[in-house]
Amino acid sequence: MLVTYDVQTLNSSGQKRLRKVAKKCEEYGVRVQNSVFECVVDNTQLRQLELSLESIIDPQVDSLRFYRLGNNHETKVKHVGAKPTIDVENTLIF
Amino acid sequence: MLVTYDVQTLNSSGQKRLRKVAKKCEEYGVRVQNSVFECVVDNTQLRQLELSLESIIDPQVDSLRFYRLGNNHETKVKHVGAKPTIDVENTLIF
Repeated sequence: MLVTYDVQTLNSSGQKRLRKVAKKCEEYGVRVQNSVFECVVDNTQLRQLELSLESIIDPQVDSLRFYRLGNNHETKVKHVGAKPTIDVENTLIF
Repeated sequence: MLVTYDVQTLNSSGQKRLRKVAKKCEEYGVRVQNSVFECVVDNTQLRQLELSLESIIDPQVDSLRFYRLGNNHETKVKHVGAKPTIDVENTLIF
């Protein structure tokens, strides 16, 4: 599974949502970019993750996307450039 | 194809790279989130897109990821929440 998200961080509640979304995703997968996580989950875990994230975001301004990558997904991915840094949320908040 | 990117926008050159990356992706696909594009491309177009984006980004701080979604990718995607707005770059620059 690939989980991508947009969270509007114009105010502190948005920044809080962003941190919560990232933290929840970290329970289920590996961060590959600031707003992109790769997760290996079964259907139950996926449903849990979806429900958790849906309860965190503001659907008026934020969004989530869940992609099923299927088997051997590593062969389907090409990465170029920097690897994601630890503790990205702190660097995103000015 | 799914193209996701992280561009560091701490300074104006980063903001410029971000705009260029988004503009280039718009030539090849549809924006589904601020930093996520879905593109239907053949191998030649994909190579062109990869080379163009690689020439724009700063690989020390930015990154690109290219995912092959395969056929019937629409059945593999779930979207929750807001749709991407037009002219996102302007809202990202403070």
